[in-house]
Amino acid sequence: MTTFDLNAYVEARRHLVDQALDRVLPGETAPPPTLHRAMRYSVNAGGKRLRPILVIAGAEAVGGTADQVMETACALEMIHTYSLIHDDLPAMDNDDYRRGMLTNHKVFGEAIAILAGDALLTLAFKLIALNGARTGDARVIATLVTDIADAAGTDGMVGGQVVDIESEGKAVDAETIDYIHMHKTAALIRASLCAGALLARASSTELAAIRACGEALGLAFQIVDDILDVEGSTEELGKTAGKDAQQQKATYPAYHGLEASRAKARVLIDQAKHALTPLGARAEPIEALAEFIVQRRS
Amino acid sequence: MTTFDLNAYVEARRHLVDQALDRVLPGETAPPPTLHRAMRYSVNAGGKRLRPILVIAGAEAVGGTADQVMETACALEMIHTYSLIHDDLPAMDNDDYRRGMLTNHKVFGEAIAILAGDALLTLAFKLIALNGARTGDARVIATLVTDIADAAGTDGMVGGQVVDIESEGKAVDAETIDYIHMHKTAALIRASLCAGALLARASSTELAAIRACGEALGLAFQIVDDILDVEGSTEELGKTAGKDAQQQKATYPAYHGLEASRAKARVLIDQAKHALTPLGARAEPIEALAEFIVQRRS
Repeated sequence: MTTFDLNAYVEARRHLVDQALDRVLPGETAPPPTLHRAMRYSVNAGGKRLRPILVIAGAEAVGGTADQVMETACALEMIHTYSLIHDDLPAMDNDDYRRGMLTNHKVFGEAIAILAGDALLTLAFKLIALNGARTGDARVIATLVTDIADAAGTDGMVGGQVVDIESEGKAVDAETIDYIHMHKTAALIRASLCAGALLARASSTELAAIRACGEALGLAFQIVDDILDVEGSTEELGKTAGKDAQQQKATYPAYHGLEASRAKARVLIDQAKHALTPLGARAEPIEALAEFIVQRRS
Repeated sequence: MTTFDLNAYVEARRHLVDQALDRVLPGETAPPPTLHRAMRYSVNAGGKRLRPILVIAGAEAVGGTADQVMETACALEMIHTYSLIHDDLPAMDNDDYRRGMLTNHKVFGEAIAILAGDALLTLAFKLIALNGARTGDARVIATLVTDIADAAGTDGMVGGQVVDIESEGKAVDAETIDYIHMHKTAALIRASLCAGALLARASSTELAAIRACGEALGLAFQIVDDILDVEGSTEELGKTAGKDAQQQKATYPAYHGLEASRAKARVLIDQAKHALTPLGARAEPIEALAEFIVQRRS
């Protein structure tokens, strides 16, 4: 039995991330204030900070520190936030609420919401490059930016979102559902863990372990998300529950059923934890985060 | 009198850029094909390739080569293209035509247009980082990415677009018009020239000259754009002429009048050319490009 206190671990790092985000985001009075308010509104709309915490945990698992990876941790939260702002737009998922708050375009209008997303994505890459440059190693920067860009772009999140939209209301096969999951969510979660490890100068053995863990963890996260959309209440989720079924989204539970989905998430989390074996005790926070991901209720 | 053949210069480099763009953009059959078709549609919608040619000219002006900066040249065209796709959306300028062709969302729908823009921006930063890494110098990569991100984001293009939208139909002062021009267009044009020079390892004197030139050139470009919108025909422009007046946009000619605008553009181009003096004959292509920018009819 582990005595590791995940709540304390997460709270301490979330606090650091929140402080750093406040530092790196443009001020609300700097021109143009509307844009900066819109960027801050969604970044501060109550996210779990899962991706930045994974960046930090990835670094710590190979002997690095939070301070070493903080700009990249902030950048991953910004990329995640930009994707939510754009996904919520009327032309996409058309959501009015996210984490119990009005979505960006409901508060600031569609034009500002699109531009706030664009600005967050742009700022994210600046922060990643600056963080990478602190290693003084051009190859590390190239690998870091490439890996995150691949996970965020057409080979990752954006690609997954396109297939997700195109699959709505259609009968899709298990392969397509896997494609959507692997690309839309899992890729960026995997990239978060790897980015931290890379910046903390992980060995190739360590990086391979972190990557294998991240892939299983990312997929499990999306399956659990789909399960919660079926099972959870709107109050618990802070967004409209049952929306996937209503929009005839291609989800894991819709295709495989709830019981098989729960079993699959469990297997993936065990795989993710097993992959960490070479890292020893330093990987304990990632293991605890993996358990949290499969057991969470929102 | 110069005997420099600008047409031949531009054609040769445009050909190289077009070939490189075809190489770095994802294939139309790779998944998801709709997204990749949408990305290629707008990149190939008949742009002048001004920004990539400025990247190359910036490199050549300090002794570098096109090959040395090609990924970044492509990236600047992608950033420009993403901004056009998003600007044309119904929530923004609501344009049906661009360069004589249907806009991205008119062909692929709004969701895919938003995502194609997102994917182009993401891919651009990957290419910039890879190109920068070829210098082997972490500081060069950090400066390169920071400069382009600042020119593209809230301190540049996106910031300018926000103020532009917010100024529609309002009485704005000369300062606001300058803000819009400097940020919305000039910043990325300046960054294009500087990126080429930086990657070609310009000295600090050379870089300062290129930067001063780029600032004047970028501002002149936007003033000429505004003049053409008043004077040009829809046929010549390939987009709806007179749209600025119709949308009550804050433009230079609307505030200062056509004659003063033409005079201002002329002064700026002369400033841009004068700034290049320290670079000698190698800057001749940039000088010719500056003349082209002020004399163009579309």
